[in-house]
Amino acid sequence: MAAATSAAWAQRLAGVRGLLLDVSGVLYDGGEGGGAPIPGSVEAVARIKQSGLKLRFCTNESQKSRDKFVGLLQRLGFDILVNEVTSPAPAACRILKERGLRPYLLVHDDLRSEFDGMDTSNPNCIIIADAAEGFSYQNLNKAFQVLINLENPVLISLGKGRYYKESDGLMLDVGPYMKALEYACDVQAEVVGKPAPEFFQAALKEMGLEAHETIMIGDDIVNDVGGAQRCGMRAMQVRTGKFRCGPFCHLGKREESP
Amino acid sequence: MAAATSAAWAQRLAGVRGLLLDVSGVLYDGGEGGGAPIPGSVEAVARIKQSGLKLRFCTNESQKSRDKFVGLLQRLGFDILVNEVTSPAPAACRILKERGLRPYLLVHDDLRSEFDGMDTSNPNCIIIADAAEGFSYQNLNKAFQVLINLENPVLISLGKGRYYKESDGLMLDVGPYMKALEYACDVQAEVVGKPAPEFFQAALKEMGLEAHETIMIGDDIVNDVGGAQRCGMRAMQVRTGKFRCGPFCHLGKREESP
Repeated sequence: MAAATSAAWAQRLAGVRGLLLDVSGVLYDGGEGGGAPIPGSVEAVARIKQSGLKLRFCTNESQKSRDKFVGLLQRLGFDILVNEVTSPAPAACRILKERGLRPYLLVHDDLRSEFDGMDTSNPNCIIIADAAEGFSYQNLNKAFQVLINLENPVLISLGKGRYYKESDGLMLDVGPYMKALEYACDVQAEVVGKPAPEFFQAALKEMGLEAHETIMIGDDIVNDVGGAQRCGMRAMQVRTGKFRCGPFCHLGKREESP
Repeated sequence: MAAATSAAWAQRLAGVRGLLLDVSGVLYDGGEGGGAPIPGSVEAVARIKQSGLKLRFCTNESQKSRDKFVGLLQRLGFDILVNEVTSPAPAACRILKERGLRPYLLVHDDLRSEFDGMDTSNPNCIIIADAAEGFSYQNLNKAFQVLINLENPVLISLGKGRYYKESDGLMLDVGPYMKALEYACDVQAEVVGKPAPEFFQAALKEMGLEAHETIMIGDDIVNDVGGAQRCGMRAMQVRTGKFRCGPFCHLGKREESP
């Protein structure tokens, strides 16, 4: 950052009318007692809102329903409302309805309310999300047994993140468990959420902006930065959250793509 | 089988001096109370031994030490001794010693004795095996945290099977969890056990036979049949264990390669 001149920053920000912010690792780190804001982030959200820029919170959070997630962030001091959040569960519900799918839910108990009203009898697909401690051998095996016995196996994954940072260290995200089921059943998961183009396009539609008018800000080089760039958006990687220095880190370079 | 003429069988068996038998799904199915022999298998082992053919039990079993595994099979009625078994744990121990590796063991408690005497302090590699219920989120996450913080990450997997059959259904094997760690840490596991050529070559050496003099018999088309064939052995797939009918099953064809 220190090396960037104000002229370079003016060029980076030219024509920007809206920001898309990842949440975990960018605004807060989860952990004991719900986690803690990353220093300066509560104030940054407030300043963005005052600036007149449009703002959308774009998260692959799938451990909690949007209500619970936003409630947590409000308690941490953030100015955030449920209708400002784009997350994968509602998109998954739309797919289930459109295709007449009845899910077996391998998800965290705190996410289940997002699927209220869905027919889960005699399941013909698997929904996998960040179940955390819910990823017991027994639970993963049950999902596997359902999936391998389907004539047309459908595996829908809410994101494919490798891991995220909590206050007591890096934690496995849904992606590794998605890969486990893919390998066990020789299927390819359908990923709902970042980095899927549909996710970013939905957020842009909700903001009423074109891709070139926005910047995505996240801590994940693949799911945040890469996904947004493939949709024609600009993107930046923060150095908080799961950010890890690459081989050129000592030279002061960031693993970002402004 | 019914379609095979005795002439075809004579050709298949020409020059055969030894058999390599997979165990789980071929001789017995695991499950409640240790599992049960597959009908006819106790007698088949006895007849093979009486026939003068050399016999080697070639298993990727990694939920139990060889002592415990052989004890279980003896109680089920099989004529089997520890020194007739080729399994991946001893091969993994040789690798650890040769390369000065100190393992973090993500393995079943019943397998730990195979690694007695190994230095597990300050681990610089992961050994993953079929931990079954031991594959809790907490345990997999601990292995992940060790692996991702290694400068030169080494992941050694005892087999890479997708699943196996127990009396109450198909169960996830070590392979899906190996894939989960590979994806989480962007590493490639080193597989010890079937289908690695070193595994079959070790078994052949223990039998004192050449590849062309043997037949591998298993229920896994990749790990048993494919692995053995790549070493120049003949191989057959049984219809017990995890065998599942393919698209031509109704025509009476087997997914084997005699």
